[in-house]
Amino acid sequence: MGVRPIAELVTILGHVQKYAPKAETCCLFQYSLPVSPHLAVQKDNKTPPSEKEILQKIVLELQKKNQKLDHHDEQWALIETAGGVLSPSPNGGLQADMYRPLRLPTILVGDSKLGGISTTISAYESLKIRGYDVNLLLLFQESVYQNANYLKEYFSYQQKKSAWKDSVPKVISILPPPEVSDPNLYCEKTDFKQMTEYYDDVSRSPEIRSAYEYLKFCHEKRIKSLEVMADNADKRIWYPFSQHSKISPKSIIALDSAYGDFFQSVTKDSSAKEILQPQFDSSASWWTQGLGHGNPELALTAGYAAGRYGHVIFAGTVHDPALRLANKLVSLLDNKRLSRVFYSDNGSTGIEVALKMAFKATGSRYGLKSELHNNEIGVIGLKRSYHGDTIGSMNACEESVYNKQVNWYNGKGYWFEFPQIKLCKGTWCLEIPDGLLDDGLNLPKFKCFQSLNEIFELDSRDIQPYKQYIFSVLKKEIQEKKRNFGAVLLEPLLLGAGGMNAVDPLFQKALVDVVRETPSLFGEFENSKLNSKAWQGLPVIFDEVFTGLYRLGFKSAAKLLQTEPDIVVNAKLLTGGVVPLCTTTSSDSIFESFLSPEKVDGLLHGHSYTAHPVGCSIALQSLNELEHLSQDNSSSSWKISMKKWGSSDNQIWSFWDKFSVEKISQFHQVKCVFAMGSVLAITLKDISSGYASNAAEEFNEFVSGLQLDKEFGLHIRGLGNVIYFMSSMNPDLESLRKIENIIIKYFE
Amino acid sequence: MGVRPIAELVTILGHVQKYAPKAETCCLFQYSLPVSPHLAVQKDNKTPPSEKEILQKIVLELQKKNQKLDHHDEQWALIETAGGVLSPSPNGGLQADMYRPLRLPTILVGDSKLGGISTTISAYESLKIRGYDVNLLLLFQESVYQNANYLKEYFSYQQKKSAWKDSVPKVISILPPPEVSDPNLYCEKTDFKQMTEYYDDVSRSPEIRSAYEYLKFCHEKRIKSLEVMADNADKRIWYPFSQHSKISPKSIIALDSAYGDFFQSVTKDSSAKEILQPQFDSSASWWTQGLGHGNPELALTAGYAAGRYGHVIFAGTVHDPALRLANKLVSLLDNKRLSRVFYSDNGSTGIEVALKMAFKATGSRYGLKSELHNNEIGVIGLKRSYHGDTIGSMNACEESVYNKQVNWYNGKGYWFEFPQIKLCKGTWCLEIPDGLLDDGLNLPKFKCFQSLNEIFELDSRDIQPYKQYIFSVLKKEIQEKKRNFGAVLLEPLLLGAGGMNAVDPLFQKALVDVVRETPSLFGEFENSKLNSKAWQGLPVIFDEVFTGLYRLGFKSAAKLLQTEPDIVVNAKLLTGGVVPLCTTTSSDSIFESFLSPEKVDGLLHGHSYTAHPVGCSIALQSLNELEHLSQDNSSSSWKISMKKWGSSDNQIWSFWDKFSVEKISQFHQVKCVFAMGSVLAITLKDISSGYASNAAEEFNEFVSGLQLDKEFGLHIRGLGNVIYFMSSMNPDLESLRKIENIIIKYFE
Repeated sequence: MGVRPIAELVTILGHVQKYAPKAETCCLFQYSLPVSPHLAVQKDNKTPPSEKEILQKIVLELQKKNQKLDHHDEQWALIETAGGVLSPSPNGGLQADMYRPLRLPTILVGDSKLGGISTTISAYESLKIRGYDVNLLLLFQESVYQNANYLKEYFSYQQKKSAWKDSVPKVISILPPPEVSDPNLYCEKTDFKQMTEYYDDVSRSPEIRSAYEYLKFCHEKRIKSLEVMADNADKRIWYPFSQHSKISPKSIIALDSAYGDFFQSVTKDSSAKEILQPQFDSSASWWTQGLGHGNPELALTAGYAAGRYGHVIFAGTVHDPALRLANKLVSLLDNKRLSRVFYSDNGSTGIEVALKMAFKATGSRYGLKSELHNNEIGVIGLKRSYHGDTIGSMNACEESVYNKQVNWYNGKGYWFEFPQIKLCKGTWCLEIPDGLLDDGLNLPKFKCFQSLNEIFELDSRDIQPYKQYIFSVLKKEIQEKKRNFGAVLLEPLLLGAGGMNAVDPLFQKALVDVVRETPSLFGEFENSKLNSKAWQGLPVIFDEVFTGLYRLGFKSAAKLLQTEPDIVVNAKLLTGGVVPLCTTTSSDSIFESFLSPEKVDGLLHGHSYTAHPVGCSIALQSLNELEHLSQDNSSSSWKISMKKWGSSDNQIWSFWDKFSVEKISQFHQVKCVFAMGSVLAITLKDISSGYASNAAEEFNEFVSGLQLDKEFGLHIRGLGNVIYFMSSMNPDLESLRKIENIIIKYFE
Repeated sequence: MGVRPIAELVTILGHVQKYAPKAETCCLFQYSLPVSPHLAVQKDNKTPPSEKEILQKIVLELQKKNQKLDHHDEQWALIETAGGVLSPSPNGGLQADMYRPLRLPTILVGDSKLGGISTTISAYESLKIRGYDVNLLLLFQESVYQNANYLKEYFSYQQKKSAWKDSVPKVISILPPPEVSDPNLYCEKTDFKQMTEYYDDVSRSPEIRSAYEYLKFCHEKRIKSLEVMADNADKRIWYPFSQHSKISPKSIIALDSAYGDFFQSVTKDSSAKEILQPQFDSSASWWTQGLGHGNPELALTAGYAAGRYGHVIFAGTVHDPALRLANKLVSLLDNKRLSRVFYSDNGSTGIEVALKMAFKATGSRYGLKSELHNNEIGVIGLKRSYHGDTIGSMNACEESVYNKQVNWYNGKGYWFEFPQIKLCKGTWCLEIPDGLLDDGLNLPKFKCFQSLNEIFELDSRDIQPYKQYIFSVLKKEIQEKKRNFGAVLLEPLLLGAGGMNAVDPLFQKALVDVVRETPSLFGEFENSKLNSKAWQGLPVIFDEVFTGLYRLGFKSAAKLLQTEPDIVVNAKLLTGGVVPLCTTTSSDSIFESFLSPEKVDGLLHGHSYTAHPVGCSIALQSLNELEHLSQDNSSSSWKISMKKWGSSDNQIWSFWDKFSVEKISQFHQVKCVFAMGSVLAITLKDISSGYASNAAEEFNEFVSGLQLDKEFGLHIRGLGNVIYFMSSMNPDLESLRKIENIIIKYFE
């Protein structure tokens, strides 16, 4: 396999070239002054190379070296970086961040002087929180401070306890070089001989030999581990949402690491040789990824929260990250109804919490006593909704081929068919479902619009037909079929798991409006007593687990619906794609239904890790960063993309190129397309639609056949006949353009 | 409030005493040689002070200084540590770890020389992942390397983006001191004058003034934030498992941070002044805490995983932490049936997964077609069981005053009353429930034992009466009442949330044995075809969310039951108390029920953050450490405690002192006691038992009245009339002894 044991972070190349001429060396970047690279490049009046250029040059050089090698050759490439591990790179970032996509095995050169124990361990920790494996720590023997002794003991203890033994360095100390008569002059006569002899000796020393052997051992262990990982996973792991008869070691993708929008994963190159190759994480890791994999700020934040708290019980206590995240969410959601934040662990639990909240509120207002166990109380929702896999959340969805497999599933509710937004053959249109065509509502089967934005100009569109239809259906369900409802539960705008179905926002607004405007449908209550923030008709829950917090380019999809829900559930992107966390944010009017002198009337739902500080901290840091990105007026990927979509504030835009998206919608294999924020969804024509379809798999095969000029591959997780691509919220637009070209190439 | 802005990590005290005599200084620890403290103490042939002694000396000195102050005085105390932030302490640990319990505001002194950018940022990161807030970074102005310029820009950018602005330092650079003629001699005549003038000037410089002002600002902000936190939380947070009418700002405890078994929280001292005081986390933060709050190794592990991966999708991919954790768990659970690990986010979701697994297996073997929606399929369990708060897990528990409040709750199953282990008046005994007394089984109401261990010697006890009883009940339920069962679901040994009820292990074994030995009760199947690892009768699920992974002193409670479950659910302690993660580990025989050519037959359950690398990594690291502790033959808290309980291998023991536990059981207010592993549960006599009781609250009031000589308080989360104390798995035994004394004092 192509992973080579390449050591970074060694020092003083020029010196090596002079005194150890046998070593084959080359200098990729050089400046005149021996100062930090960011200063050196300035002083030389040069334009600094970009981080991408530096990495590409390194990879190119390594490939050249690799090609020259005979199959049986054993050679080593050491990449020396400049100065300390966090010394600035030529363009001012930190070097350890810059080199991170390569994640090469690392040799840390330690400091044997006074204070060197501290700086060496700190450097190691800085590398660790960036995901590096530090195989080796080299330093000089020195008898006064004896740093090597301490560090040997320290790291050998750490290694013994660590689950990642190869990421904790083996410490090797070597004799220091001879004193030179004047370090600035290198007095040629005597010093040259002394120094070359020193390098000759050292390179043959048992310490250096054992260093090489250990590096080789780590390298081979790493390769071996990557090679067998899929096999072992196939035997040991029970995969989520999978039919295991379709899984084999061949289909399992072993991930070494990840950075930005990319996995670093084991793939096969054109000669069927296994290599580590970047693959674009097209599912944004099940829609969670926000600020890039391996984000160093979020990693430091995770460490900070774990180091400051770990987890602390959250019943009757409060800690800064949980409180501030709650405040941040309420201000961000910008909905005057919302005031209270309840924490849980994932979207599914958060939906169950929301339902418990809503049903209790409905129960106390309308006298549906919860003690009655009226299991027939249901939700009002949309068909093809998905709210999670725990039984309560499943029960809030209509029966499907999937959930009816589950013995305890028992769907309770009414689910509307809905008008869907589609980009077909370059035109944005609404497709009205058959139910709405029959009712004398004068709706056409397809209604075309000039732009996607036009669909979102709700004020200029006629909401009445929708309201009329919805009211008549609800009336029938309640009055004729004697159904009880306890909540409206909607995924605003985009029904993700159901197949990336984009709903007409006007229809969802109409549904909420009808429920709020005709409360008498649901029970008897003097509505005039309610204040403006109180829930009316039924509590309205927005499941923004997928659509919320900027995923679609907006803080909250609710704004685009011009509707304020009573309860909002957020998860996934909430933590920027690092750890699970969910919030169910509710109004005081719902909260008050639980107040009573009786303990048992409280919302008796809780998870052990409720509001865990690591999750809350990462979420707060991530939301700050997302907010910053959304407001950044410099040439960010946001502003560039908005401009390309011709979008002013509060208008629809996407990181995906408008013209590419339109072009893709023109191909005959394509049924329709939708793009918004970081999401691009392509629905393929296929006889068996939905989950059962294999259309996405065919695309996948095409892509893996492509080899993509080896720069990167695509990791696709299709939804039946829907292929979708979702980037982080700070993507490299150049990569997205390349992906659009691959997609276009496939259809051509 | 008593938090003082004290700055750590400044340098060179001796120098300051000489040249800036106006500063009031004192040296708490001093050694002859200017080398790392761990070496200096050796060279001086001294016994190093313990970390506790060092901290106590600092606190004492600060208290003295504080007492001398007039109310209006404004003074500063700076604590200078030795060398770099990770320089060794006298006894060999890292200084930043040693000082961590105090978590004082920190001034980092940066390095203005070549390479200083890297060492300074790394030192900052090492402090951050230990939970420190670095308020200020001081360094000398220097014109060649210009580190101050870079660091100012770097940290001001970090601060702008950070959600914790005060934990990212403001950078202040000051003029360097004058060159001295010989730094080793300090030539008195000229140098003394120069140097004292320098300090005079510097101390009056605008930079140093602004540094003080900024420190003061950060301090006041911190105090303010702690003071208002409870008020704000009362308005913004919806607490888990709580009746909010009983919550007020006064009852909410604001946590500044946590370390080991302690919260650092806002409490009132004897003069009703708010101070930061350690409080023992008696609930082990809802039973999650394993290796101490703010554990630096787990924090570094969290950072490593976040930096290496973030989250990566886990459908059809594999990464090292998930695979290795799965392998580790299977080997640790040491149950030949178990082979497959399914990941989810918390105990409740993991139980739902287990139930879906079991019901499908039962359905395919006995022909209970899941398509039938036979919602009456139920579980066999014990009364007062608790499995989580999502609807599916709730449905697996019998109706109670709590779950019947939830509209969609619909309990499905049969739950046995059970014989309970109790330490009453110094004697370990079993209390047999009435149901088992009536059946001609010859069981006494109370059965006494010589020791707790005797109860666990299952082979020497008579299992027949239990089996006879269980069989007759099941037969009646199935044959007369026509009930269908799909799984056995048990919390082995200790029913936690139900009130820390300890179950006779023989009864649970008997239940499993009856189900496996009489499969014909549940359906028709040719059992002779089954291999030895296959499930028999019904799949047996152990909910080890609370009891598993060493909480009770053993890797798995299953071993003590001498019974191998088909499915085990682990969570809580799994990640050592940092982030949520759950595993449902199952046998191949269950797994195979889901294999089919049809996608829809798979286990279609999945959470976005399935097997998130941060959780898996922390879990793996934590399990390694727990295993290490359990096998450590040195004088660890484990071995000491086992010895005190007179326990050899595989015998019952606890961190809680055997004699104290027995003594507590003697008090007339105490109904019974149970202790095992890190758990001590005291059931109080109370007319209204269960959750409705306020007995624990009375104890709480007593404790908060005690003031506990100010060393630490107790944070109690009672379970009605049960008060329990749960330590981490590496507790400071001295603290536990103090707690036992408080308990005894309360009852006396």
